[in-house]
Amino acid sequence: MSEVSGNAHEHLAQAAGDADPHEVLTAYRQSIDNIDAALIHMLAERFKITQAVGHYKAGHNLPPADPAREEKQIARLRSLASAAQLDPEFSEKFLRFVIDEVIHHHESIQAAQE
Amino acid sequence: MSEVSGNAHEHLAQAAGDADPHEVLTAYRQSIDNIDAALIHMLAERFKITQAVGHYKAGHNLPPADPAREEKQIARLRSLASAAQLDPEFSEKFLRFVIDEVIHHHESIQAAQE
Repeated sequence: MSEVSGNAHEHLAQAAGDADPHEVLTAYRQSIDNIDAALIHMLAERFKITQAVGHYKAGHNLPPADPAREEKQIARLRSLASAAQLDPEFSEKFLRFVIDEVIHHHESIQAAQE
Repeated sequence: MSEVSGNAHEHLAQAAGDADPHEVLTAYRQSIDNIDAALIHMLAERFKITQAVGHYKAGHNLPPADPAREEKQIARLRSLASAAQLDPEFSEKFLRFVIDEVIHHHESIQAAQE
């Protein structure tokens, strides 16, 4: 994460509400809300795919977790995070958070088929 | 989360690799990797904004956390999640996961200014 205090969003928010602190925060929050909606929709699509993967793995007797694949995903996301000025540690925690949920889904799918 | 086993991604992956289970998984994983790159870049942008919010709050003696705002965000994301067939519980866990990181950043910014 960059330690520079000025960035494009800061300048946009200040332009939007020079006098009123409430307006400045509101401008920031509108951008955060837009990004959160995008994140939720991307996550919904991601789980649609992993659900299909879960059914596929259960149908082919493949294990729910795949440590070698996870290691590759983590290395790739850490590298993407660094390039985007996102803390690589956070990107790894985030992927583990999502993968834990996915493995939990896959286990449920396999248990339902046994 | 829908319990239907067939979806667009499943059909795409099967079309891509009818015979070879490895090819089917590879097709799914390419889509997951694309979505993960999008998620990482959205998260990077989100933290750029919350970092600006942190500096703004510290400069105006505003508290790092805002429970009323968080409650509104959770209700909104749960509703977006339901509409997108994402488990609302997961969307709430996800937002808390992100907000915990943000509050941790805000506290660091305020501590640095004290």
